Amino acid sequence: MSHLLHIDSSVQADRSVSRRLTARAAQRWRATHPGGTVTYRDVAVNPIPHLDADTGSARLVPAETRTPAQEASFALSAALVDEIKHADTLLLGLPLYNFGAPSTVHAWVDHIVAPGLSIVAETGGGLLGDTDFIVLASRGGGYGAGTPREGWDHSEAWLPHAVSLTGLQPRFITAELTMAEVNPAMAELKPLAAESLSRALAAIDQLWTANENAA
Amino acid sequence: MSHLLHIDSSVQADRSVSRRLTARAAQRWRATHPGGTVTYRDVAVNPIPHLDADTGSARLVPAETRTPAQEASFALSAALVDEIKHADTLLLGLPLYNFGAPSTVHAWVDHIVAPGLSIVAETGGGLLGDTDFIVLASRGGGYGAGTPREGWDHSEAWLPHAVSLTGLQPRFITAELTMAEVNPAMAELKPLAAESLSRALAAIDQLWTANENAA
Repeated sequence: MSHLLHIDSSVQADRSVSRRLTARAAQRWRATHPGGTVTYRDVAVNPIPHLDADTGSARLVPAETRTPAQEASFALSAALVDEIKHADTLLLGLPLYNFGAPSTVHAWVDHIVAPGLSIVAETGGGLLGDTDFIVLASRGGGYGAGTPREGWDHSEAWLPHAVSLTGLQPRFITAELTMAEVNPAMAELKPLAAESLSRALAAIDQLWTANENAA
Repeated sequence: MSHLLHIDSSVQADRSVSRRLTARAAQRWRATHPGGTVTYRDVAVNPIPHLDADTGSARLVPAETRTPAQEASFALSAALVDEIKHADTLLLGLPLYNFGAPSTVHAWVDHIVAPGLSIVAETGGGLLGDTDFIVLASRGGGYGAGTPREGWDHSEAWLPHAVSLTGLQPRFITAELTMAEVNPAMAELKPLAAESLSRALAAIDQLWTANENAA
């Protein structure tokens, strides 16, 4: 039976574009995977704890030497990795904050990149490569080739490297210029923003086909 | 009177290279600024809370509409920004975790980039440009030009953009290949790692001179 893991990270509720994109994708997935099941996680509502001075080494020290704080941190890592292992498809909503991924997504990555859980400790082989990782990204401005802030989206550049050891290979569908709707200074960019959103929605609608799934 | 703000973020204690670099820099600063004062913050020991669903908009909504959670989050932002405003020099220890900055540093940045606190709300002008921002960075591997993982240090690329609206302009002193000391597979890189560390320490020792300060 097919299983979907759906993760949102925007700190905004109704106004979030990344949540709109993941909702559309999850709806599309359900329609094309009758009988499929879904796990939902919201790291903005229930943030993943930072790796800190007490827990940062939890994934590196031998099990028998873990402190209680490290034990709890390791157990969360194991749960987060298991969620991914059980999913055929992982959808991640990824807004851009201060030109990077949300700190909660960094914390999630720090948990799921773990020798013995998502990486074979002995060989370094990744254990999550069977899960299709689809990122629904949004960014308030435009950072494409030829724009004044070309290269300022450090989230989309970072994430594939960050999870590479696990075997996860994110593919991105991105809506940009999302601030044009609310920022008067960007008013003239509204048509480009609408075009970007339309392209993203169309790409989502082509992710899965009923035929493909039935085959 | 001169004032230094010293921030560490490594989850490691004694083994941290970035902590070794910031300690050397702070010692050098004290020696060249007699009578100067120092504020110390450790975001690995006392992590900065994530922006989350309850607090993410705290820096954007009108003061009179803030919830108690937003009020507390805004107060922390104001305190963190004030710390920087009061400092002539800001030292930040910045290790590289999963090819990005620590999630705690992302959370710190999300707090200090705030219209009305670090940015003039009306004009967008940055208010923190008078503070000299020195980043003491460490990274376990080598990500320079011509190496197999060229461009995988997303932290050093991200931070200048992330804080740009505040007027802060980080300058980096970086020690790389720090894992060579502990990873047997990197043993042959130990001489390069030692050379990188020596260069970083020498750069720190040239940051301030007693003469310059006395002038």
